[in-house]
Amino acid sequence: MRIALIGAGNLATHLGKALHKAGYEIVCVFSRTEESAKNLSSILKCRYTTDIKEVDKDADIYISAIKDSAFHEIAHELIKDRENSLFLHTAGSLPMDIWSGYAKRYGVIYPMQTFSKCKEVDFTVIPLFLEANSKDDLSLIRTIAEQLSDRVYDASSEQRRYLHIAAVFACNFSNHMYAICDDLLQRNGIPFDVMLPLIDETAAKVHKLKPIDAQTGPAIRYDENVINGHLSMLENDKDIQDIYEAISKSINKFSRK
Amino acid sequence: MRIALIGAGNLATHLGKALHKAGYEIVCVFSRTEESAKNLSSILKCRYTTDIKEVDKDADIYISAIKDSAFHEIAHELIKDRENSLFLHTAGSLPMDIWSGYAKRYGVIYPMQTFSKCKEVDFTVIPLFLEANSKDDLSLIRTIAEQLSDRVYDASSEQRRYLHIAAVFACNFSNHMYAICDDLLQRNGIPFDVMLPLIDETAAKVHKLKPIDAQTGPAIRYDENVINGHLSMLENDKDIQDIYEAISKSINKFSRK
Repeated sequence: MRIALIGAGNLATHLGKALHKAGYEIVCVFSRTEESAKNLSSILKCRYTTDIKEVDKDADIYISAIKDSAFHEIAHELIKDRENSLFLHTAGSLPMDIWSGYAKRYGVIYPMQTFSKCKEVDFTVIPLFLEANSKDDLSLIRTIAEQLSDRVYDASSEQRRYLHIAAVFACNFSNHMYAICDDLLQRNGIPFDVMLPLIDETAAKVHKLKPIDAQTGPAIRYDENVINGHLSMLENDKDIQDIYEAISKSINKFSRK
Repeated sequence: MRIALIGAGNLATHLGKALHKAGYEIVCVFSRTEESAKNLSSILKCRYTTDIKEVDKDADIYISAIKDSAFHEIAHELIKDRENSLFLHTAGSLPMDIWSGYAKRYGVIYPMQTFSKCKEVDFTVIPLFLEANSKDDLSLIRTIAEQLSDRVYDASSEQRRYLHIAAVFACNFSNHMYAICDDLLQRNGIPFDVMLPLIDETAAKVHKLKPIDAQTGPAIRYDENVINGHLSMLENDKDIQDIYEAISKSINKFSRK
């Protein structure tokens, strides 16, 4: 099974490494950013190119892991002369049918995880959500996915769309709460490390309790003194103050559901 | 060392258990809610009362772990006839001097953690922030605190105020992001459990990377197609849509810092 990777960003890097480790041959890495393409190709021991036309023509599977907005710019050139191959994308936010104007055999493998190049991840625990436009190709993708992870699920494009927006809240937005926390501490000479036990416990709690039942703090108690005190501490940070107010109101509203 | 606990909520429960386990004698639990007082007193093998006047007069230390807004309602009665004891509160948001109109010897022990009665916690990793109005009492509190946790720090009222607001972001607000995630998934028939590896990795990442460097997703890439798609998915949830928009803008602003 010969695989070409379209993209050399965070997701492509971790997926490429997992495929390589599972014994799959990566034949080529494409990225418009030469440095990224070169770095990943050296890890995966394959050639690289910054020209989509120069990607190998004889791969069995082409896996696209590029920014959603770049998809249509490369899709036509990618599929040309490669009509019998299987084309997969990896995006939570794109429907499977985005391929339908271009390819005959297509599908999706969506790894729902946050990837940064410099942080190793255990790929075996990452949920992989699969979709394909034929039963045979769904089986083929499942065979590959099960060699990478213990958590493989089928998901329709509609389900994946909700998984993705939910993941933005659970991951990107909770990480931004850590970033605001770090910013507030830093400005007061307190190291961020003291927050790690609290961050860990907050994540650990939702393994046992529903998030709504795990909630604590001034907003759920509707402790107006504390809330008003905090809002006035944020007076010079209008954006952060707005976020504080909107989330506190929403916590309170959820508690009355 | 005889300790009386004023309050029987989440914090009082876990702090009481940790003190009991470390061999301290809890002589009495006070709560206006009889059921809470009774439950905690049976765990700590002590008496309970719902009348502040009936709290033992001869404890060495009184630890208050009640809602901030209830403090002044009980402080006067609590301290009457107990003038030589040490009075501590446990709140991130209250300055130490809140005691000054009432007591002679006073201080703070602030455990920075999220406590729910039904979820056990490892007290030894919880950061405890201490303050007292005399060196001797600070030493006394430190001796006790070090038997409960490996992470004991001094913190001024001003530092504690910033720790508390930072903790609201890192804990309560990130938990609310999990709650919104759960809500979105539930409405689409997807179990919340699939999010746990992502939540765990998001928390694990900030042990290695600064939160701002750990960020991924559509907002940091400024992927307008995805962001606009998500905003339209939230059209019938104005509150959640506002939160999505405010946090996405803030993520983008932080990335340009």
